[in-house]
Amino acid sequence: MQLGMIGLGRMGANLVRRLMRDGHRCVAYDVNDSAVRQLEGEGALGAVSMADFVAKLEKPRAVWLMLPAGVVQSTLHELIGLLDPDDVVVDGGNSYYRDDIARAKQLGTRNIHYLDCGTSGGVWGLERGYCLMIGGPEEPVRRLDPIFRSIAPGLGNAEPTPSRTRTGTAPEGYLHCGPSGAGHFVKMVHNGVEYGMMAAIAEGLSIIKHANVGEKPQTFDAETAPLRDPEAYRYDIDVAEVAEVWRRGSVVGSWLVDLLADALARSPQLDDFTGRVSDSGEGRWTVLASVDEGVPAPVITAALVERFQSQGRGDFANKALSAMRSEFGGHAERKG
Amino acid sequence: MQLGMIGLGRMGANLVRRLMRDGHRCVAYDVNDSAVRQLEGEGALGAVSMADFVAKLEKPRAVWLMLPAGVVQSTLHELIGLLDPDDVVVDGGNSYYRDDIARAKQLGTRNIHYLDCGTSGGVWGLERGYCLMIGGPEEPVRRLDPIFRSIAPGLGNAEPTPSRTRTGTAPEGYLHCGPSGAGHFVKMVHNGVEYGMMAAIAEGLSIIKHANVGEKPQTFDAETAPLRDPEAYRYDIDVAEVAEVWRRGSVVGSWLVDLLADALARSPQLDDFTGRVSDSGEGRWTVLASVDEGVPAPVITAALVERFQSQGRGDFANKALSAMRSEFGGHAERKG
Amino acid sequence: MQLGMIGLGRMGANLVRRLMRDGHRCVAYDVNDSAVRQLEGEGALGAVSMADFVAKLEKPRAVWLMLPAGVVQSTLHELIGLLDPDDVVVDGGNSYYRDDIARAKQLGTRNIHYLDCGTSGGVWGLERGYCLMIGGPEEPVRRLDPIFRSIAPGLGNAEPTPSRTRTGTAPEGYLHCGPSGAGHFVKMVHNGVEYGMMAAIAEGLSIIKHANVGEKPQTFDAETAPLRDPEAYRYDIDVAEVAEVWRRGSVVGSWLVDLLADALARSPQLDDFTGRVSDSGEGRWTVLASVDEGVPAPVITAALVERFQSQGRGDFANKALSAMRSEFGGHAERKG
Amino acid sequence: MQLGMIGLGRMGANLVRRLMRDGHRCVAYDVNDSAVRQLEGEGALGAVSMADFVAKLEKPRAVWLMLPAGVVQSTLHELIGLLDPDDVVVDGGNSYYRDDIARAKQLGTRNIHYLDCGTSGGVWGLERGYCLMIGGPEEPVRRLDPIFRSIAPGLGNAEPTPSRTRTGTAPEGYLHCGPSGAGHFVKMVHNGVEYGMMAAIAEGLSIIKHANVGEKPQTFDAETAPLRDPEAYRYDIDVAEVAEVWRRGSVVGSWLVDLLADALARSPQLDDFTGRVSDSGEGRWTVLASVDEGVPAPVITAALVERFQSQGRGDFANKALSAMRSEFGGHAERKG
Repeated sequence: MQLGMIGLGRMGANLVRRLMRDGHRCVAYDVNDSAVRQLEGEGALGAVSMADFVAKLEKPRAVWLMLPAGVVQSTLHELIGLLDPDDVVVDGGNSYYRDDIARAKQLGTRNIHYLDCGTSGGVWGLERGYCLMIGGPEEPVRRLDPIFRSIAPGLGNAEPTPSRTRTGTAPEGYLHCGPSGAGHFVKMVHNGVEYGMMAAIAEGLSIIKHANVGEKPQTFDAETAPLRDPEAYRYDIDVAEVAEVWRRGSVVGSWLVDLLADALARSPQLDDFTGRVSDSGEGRWTVLASVDEGVPAPVITAALVERFQSQGRGDFANKALSAMRSEFGGHAERKG
Repeated sequence: MQLGMIGLGRMGANLVRRLMRDGHRCVAYDVNDSAVRQLEGEGALGAVSMADFVAKLEKPRAVWLMLPAGVVQSTLHELIGLLDPDDVVVDGGNSYYRDDIARAKQLGTRNIHYLDCGTSGGVWGLERGYCLMIGGPEEPVRRLDPIFRSIAPGLGNAEPTPSRTRTGTAPEGYLHCGPSGAGHFVKMVHNGVEYGMMAAIAEGLSIIKHANVGEKPQTFDAETAPLRDPEAYRYDIDVAEVAEVWRRGSVVGSWLVDLLADALARSPQLDDFTGRVSDSGEGRWTVLASVDEGVPAPVITAALVERFQSQGRGDFANKALSAMRSEFGGHAERKG
Repeated sequence: MQLGMIGLGRMGANLVRRLMRDGHRCVAYDVNDSAVRQLEGEGALGAVSMADFVAKLEKPRAVWLMLPAGVVQSTLHELIGLLDPDDVVVDGGNSYYRDDIARAKQLGTRNIHYLDCGTSGGVWGLERGYCLMIGGPEEPVRRLDPIFRSIAPGLGNAEPTPSRTRTGTAPEGYLHCGPSGAGHFVKMVHNGVEYGMMAAIAEGLSIIKHANVGEKPQTFDAETAPLRDPEAYRYDIDVAEVAEVWRRGSVVGSWLVDLLADALARSPQLDDFTGRVSDSGEGRWTVLASVDEGVPAPVITAALVERFQSQGRGDFANKALSAMRSEFGGHAERKG
Repeated sequence: MQLGMIGLGRMGANLVRRLMRDGHRCVAYDVNDSAVRQLEGEGALGAVSMADFVAKLEKPRAVWLMLPAGVVQSTLHELIGLLDPDDVVVDGGNSYYRDDIARAKQLGTRNIHYLDCGTSGGVWGLERGYCLMIGGPEEPVRRLDPIFRSIAPGLGNAEPTPSRTRTGTAPEGYLHCGPSGAGHFVKMVHNGVEYGMMAAIAEGLSIIKHANVGEKPQTFDAETAPLRDPEAYRYDIDVAEVAEVWRRGSVVGSWLVDLLADALARSPQLDDFTGRVSDSGEGRWTVLASVDEGVPAPVITAALVERFQSQGRGDFANKALSAMRSEFGGHAERKG
């Protein structure tokens, strides 16, 4: 079928490519002309303006937004005036699910359908397919089924779940999760889980990397905890090899371990990185949801806090700790 | 080559089977006679006593222990008197790496080689192969290479790591990690990582499962935090389907998600479980190592603490919290 | 001066008493008649209705609300129609500071002043005085200074801070923290700090209480982590006495330790409590603020999560953990 | 009575002073001559060598060690050869309680009594008195009661616990906690509690300090979580004043808040500190004990991990996180 894509960054452009490979026709638009021309060269129908984009789509239209969360609202504002009743708009980016609830209502007043679709797969999705978590009303979700099916990885990528007896699209890598916002809610939590898994792997390799602390000269003063058993920490273990071996047959086998093994194969000390780890919203929102629900999520929460600390945002608290130590014990801070 | 296996529980018996499938000859011994006879029926050479076991092995002998951590020491004590210089003993169980250091020294006084080998793969290893993390001196590790290679998953189970240029056995699923104890050290941390990954997945699905708290009647009293936006928590999301869809193309794709999807396919409410989560040592030891090293591991640590809490071990602290609330605010505990 | 109090629960009634002791005149109103009559008997001027209450106050009026957060909005709605420009309303309860911002604007359209005042001190405030954290515009805060001064503990309760050279009311136990909402913001974080301090104390005493685990019979199976050094855990320490001794001269000396020592003096096993620890909003809001700000607050956050777990809200996650353990390792849950 | 003190650092010297003020006679020894001479000038009997020290003590001797943990063992080794049966040695420093168990046995073979005494009070103890947590056999504890009583704060420093009906020394600020090691065990956990309380206070003030994030220019890119409600974070709150007001009447009132208020009165931005927070052993040991016992201590543990992070020890894990983000999403690290 035909789909219009607004937003031709890495994700949007690859979605268009994956759809065209599977026989769909795509209309492509971006504020950046050269991104449009690039995809025209690969077979898409380019648009020079939002109006041109809408005009080139067959009714009822199917429009997919693949935009930074910060420009979705203004784009929708411009788009909505050009659409007709029964058209469908999919927000495939990382919007906050609470915004979806409001937007679905807003578009609903004009009988335009709004779907929210969490899209996981990153830069690898063109080849692997994208895992899709979809929210919104039944009918338009069904209408776009051929699109979702082509974008998703399909059955081939993993062994069937042995005990599974139900029908449904989940084994093909896309799922209608519930009403408006449900798709981005599930994607939001997916990213929260991702934070926790990444942190577990990173911390574990760090513990292994420092298994040689017993070989380092120790400092003996009142400000330094002594290592009681240095002879138990005399290992120089190659963490790049550990990541590689964990890829096969182990319980922690996962795509994240695959990726980290690749990064370590290129750079065993990860010297390209400073260790300032960004967070881009979904992790925070997952923690807010856990607090609102009153559901304990100690690991996901700790993973988020760890990122804040990597960003240097704990400085004032740390100074306050040193100040208290100085006050009650006369402890000076150790340097370096 | 020939290998002797002591301990024919689920893990030990399957190791013997996997080795025999690959053409190795196995001598099998267990205190439980029927386990020995079972494997004799499958082609192993059974032993009726430790002495018989040792007598049936060709020199220099290769012995693999697959035993609960608690009986390794006594078994070694009996075994060591029967072995000869240059024999090799592999401890393939979940021993604490500090015990390995001591045991390697002890056996070394008699010129017997001791290897520690962390073995991951659980009940699925017979088919998938086992990920092996090995510690000990070079020569006996090299000598047993055919054994390790047959037990490990081999290259076939995962795509090659694209950036990898090094040689070595890691891509085949086994790795010589370092001197005595290094194998169990890496396996210990592997299990710590496993705790963290499991917790991240479990917490995420729990947040999704409780996305309907806004539909529940709220209690309004001074002891209950109000939910400010109930309309944002009105989702009844099928967590079994979410686990299934996450198996394909998503960033959290992993063997653990595969397994949980299977459990949820059988029992969507997980009614077979009460939620009392055991911990069996390696998670604790990983946290102890992180503390000794002074390496922050907030996520792995939180995952361990979460298990302690599931075991009801926070009761006294919780009572103390309620007592303080009662003292300063006259707050009574809410029931139910 | 004269103050009108709406809400004569424990906190409100004691505020009236403390003000009258210091020579202020109070008009008292509550939907519960008997609470009004009780304070009339102690010297307050009782009101039989909101209109009566407002009529009995001298202009410009000063009204203090001491109500559950859930009824503040409806009370304000009724009250506002009866007030005149330049009257002042103080919300002394535990409202969310974001509501203060909205309410101050709403009342401001009628030129009525709105102050938010976080009030700490609990059931002991009548004697000790209440710590007050105030938000709102300068002028009405200054106007009510005699009221705040009387409610606050005053200089007498603590040694002067040696290095302090500034003037200001903080040493008397009340502080104008900033514009609307700032008072409840500081009170909210105060309660978050309280969660963390309480948890630290409770956990510490719990570790001391369980210092006898080495004397208990151990279970040896694959589901139980072994205790390697039972001889290091053979202490039966009296935690009630520990709390008492920590009250004097120690670094952890605090009002919370005082209170817990008292609870333990009455009931060394805290048998009156089940360990289900409520949370009533401020802890959650503090964590939400830390996430919005991107400021790491691992300890306050962990204290909140610990309460959720005491409430049994981790059940599904725990079942999922047991399910995964069963899948990969064939581990059954241990009972009891 | 007479006491010999070995180790005349800040703590040891002040203990001698406090004892002499209360009429006790002290023999003072330190490897640093000038420290000995200083105390001689204040009335102590100085010793020029360990042998001289022992010779100047009346039998049965009472010796108090106030030494860095690292030199206790060697000092004991020298001292033990000079003592006689029935002499008493008190280790008043911060030794690990497991060492106490071994040392008590070692000295017991010569019928010398060994007491372990956790001493809290820091640089303020000379005036406030020191909170003492004592371990060891009954008789020598009783024998040294006059010493403990003089060092401890006594009844005067805090209101009596209202519900307390028991007798015992705890209200005077010293407590015989149990057999050898029990004193340092309780002191160790005391310090763990201290870590948690300090962190709660520091984090809370940090959240208040950053309540103005809504006034800062925001970055809009895929690597930065957007702040949805900047208008809710426009407070410039004076944290020094907040610490001061919390000192009086609030639930978080504590000696630690007193101390931090003083530090902030001198330097509101705490510019003298870099935020590298040392840890000196007891916090680590407390966490190890909680893990061995299987007792959840999420807050104390998080406080320890937070210190490790302030020391920059999370770098490799953080780099691994950034590496994974780069791999799956093409995310570059944000600078600055």
